[in-house]
Amino acid sequence: MEYPKVKDFSSLIDRSELSLWRYKSLIPFSKGKISLGEGLTPLIHHREEGVELYFKLEYVSPTGSFKDRGATVEVSRAKSIGVRRIVEDSSGNAGLAYSAYSAFAGIKARVYVPRDAPTAKRMLMKMCGTEVVECETREEAAQRAISELDEGDLYIGHTWNPFFLEGTKTVAYELYEHGIIGFDSIVIPVSAGTLLLGFYKGFKDLMNMGFIDRLPRLYAVQAGGVTPIYEDLRGEKWKGEEGTLADGLRIKDPPRRKMIVNAIKESNGSVVVVGNTEIVESMKHLYKMGLTVEPTSATAYAAYRRLRREAGLRVLIPLTGTGMKTLDKLIHLK
Amino acid sequence: MEYPKVKDFSSLIDRSELSLWRYKSLIPFSKGKISLGEGLTPLIHHREEGVELYFKLEYVSPTGSFKDRGATVEVSRAKSIGVRRIVEDSSGNAGLAYSAYSAFAGIKARVYVPRDAPTAKRMLMKMCGTEVVECETREEAAQRAISELDEGDLYIGHTWNPFFLEGTKTVAYELYEHGIIGFDSIVIPVSAGTLLLGFYKGFKDLMNMGFIDRLPRLYAVQAGGVTPIYEDLRGEKWKGEEGTLADGLRIKDPPRRKMIVNAIKESNGSVVVVGNTEIVESMKHLYKMGLTVEPTSATAYAAYRRLRREAGLRVLIPLTGTGMKTLDKLIHLK
Repeated sequence: MEYPKVKDFSSLIDRSELSLWRYKSLIPFSKGKISLGEGLTPLIHHREEGVELYFKLEYVSPTGSFKDRGATVEVSRAKSIGVRRIVEDSSGNAGLAYSAYSAFAGIKARVYVPRDAPTAKRMLMKMCGTEVVECETREEAAQRAISELDEGDLYIGHTWNPFFLEGTKTVAYELYEHGIIGFDSIVIPVSAGTLLLGFYKGFKDLMNMGFIDRLPRLYAVQAGGVTPIYEDLRGEKWKGEEGTLADGLRIKDPPRRKMIVNAIKESNGSVVVVGNTEIVESMKHLYKMGLTVEPTSATAYAAYRRLRREAGLRVLIPLTGTGMKTLDKLIHLK
Repeated sequence: MEYPKVKDFSSLIDRSELSLWRYKSLIPFSKGKISLGEGLTPLIHHREEGVELYFKLEYVSPTGSFKDRGATVEVSRAKSIGVRRIVEDSSGNAGLAYSAYSAFAGIKARVYVPRDAPTAKRMLMKMCGTEVVECETREEAAQRAISELDEGDLYIGHTWNPFFLEGTKTVAYELYEHGIIGFDSIVIPVSAGTLLLGFYKGFKDLMNMGFIDRLPRLYAVQAGGVTPIYEDLRGEKWKGEEGTLADGLRIKDPPRRKMIVNAIKESNGSVVVVGNTEIVESMKHLYKMGLTVEPTSATAYAAYRRLRREAGLRVLIPLTGTGMKTLDKLIHLK
């Protein structure tokens, strides 16, 4: 995309839109958009041991996760080209986002999920009318989604689809629009990497347009047991506690693996792997602050607690998904 | 409160606030506010059989319901006067809102709930550190909350507390700020009536300041079996199907009963009672539009389907709470 030549970012914003579509001059497929009012998520400031922490509440979203940012753009595109059914594979949140947006658009949906995806996520998808196909593993879900396509189907594939990032990049625009900039680092859970790459793309756009002059350090967070980015950055196998509670972080070989690694390197960031013990501690801590997240989201704060001063004095932590869809996983936290 | 004398509503708005506190010039206790970024909820337009329907997605909120609007104001007040513990009775959503906001404020909380409140709501409250006291009935919860107060406790009582409405009224300001006005009617679930009275108060404020010249008709929706407003308006007992699925609509004698009735009469509105069959139908319909609500919220759309043309040609339906906290009630909808 060619960047508009403007002196003032605010001239690019359509303030009549109370959603990420206020940045439609920077998003493709804004005609006939399929929007449930996603984006413009809350930002909570919290000073902790001298560090200015900011939590971006991405779970305050129509289907309870940041995946809505990507789904609104991708389903708008699907609608604009007359797709009859979309097909996706997902561990849960993306599947629900696509289920809701495609239902709203009047497009059918089929989502392949691993058998152990949280019950609530599968149930909500079905209630939106989605055909949910349960598979043994996350890998089988990805394979079958592609191999079982019928004529007229559009495989969405948020894990590699470039349009998904056209939605997630808006999180960076939001921060800039509201003057919340100058972060030393951002600590982001990474599975397919769509949020990390969204931040990267959004900040790069702002640099290319001349509004900011550097990237914050991007720290990828992975859950013990599924650590491709760790392996690529560190050149060694990961050893440590399993992080199976983070049901959203389970893609073993993300299609954009190299892009993720390059974005982290360019920003002088790094990778942190957390295990179940730290995830539970982090969850407890966040709930005691009134932040009702899911285990996958809690990995970011767990990683921050490991990084501490290495993360700098001004740190952003996106909280990616609500805990209300993962209560079957939370029973043992009581 | 004295109304500011201004010609332009926009001069009352602090646009740097991405929450209902952008209207702080019209809210008491804005100093040291305890905010999780509530308000500014999505508005979805949907044309149905020639009627312009608007859904206000109040469930896209930090704890998943419109109760966050009241909780932010009331907990800000509690914090400003140095309260150590707040005490509340609730069927679920208000209890969770208070749990999260008091946790964020560093204030303790005790919430009395009926034993059959949705599991997820009770669980999330406990995870926020709230002491949850289970009672046999909604009435017992209300009685014990008051009779078991200790020294230093503040009984919040959202069902009668005037400050709660100082939060819920902002929903009307939001509509006006964004130019979404001129509704023939608004269809609102009523238990304690805090949302209906919030709409009423907000629109009355706008009238008193000279920005609008009439109230939309306010239609109260009640669930079969708990119908005090119906009885007061119609002067007869209600007969029909039970609406027990609407777990949030169960206050048999709301403290503001007379205020609610007067607001409905002044607006030329009315009352509609719905039963479980209609609630289930409405839920299915809303999910097929990608709107993932709880049964209590679905009563409003069910009522609209009964009213149809009586509601007018431009109708607002607030969707009050997310379905993600009531999945144990939704199992039989699959």
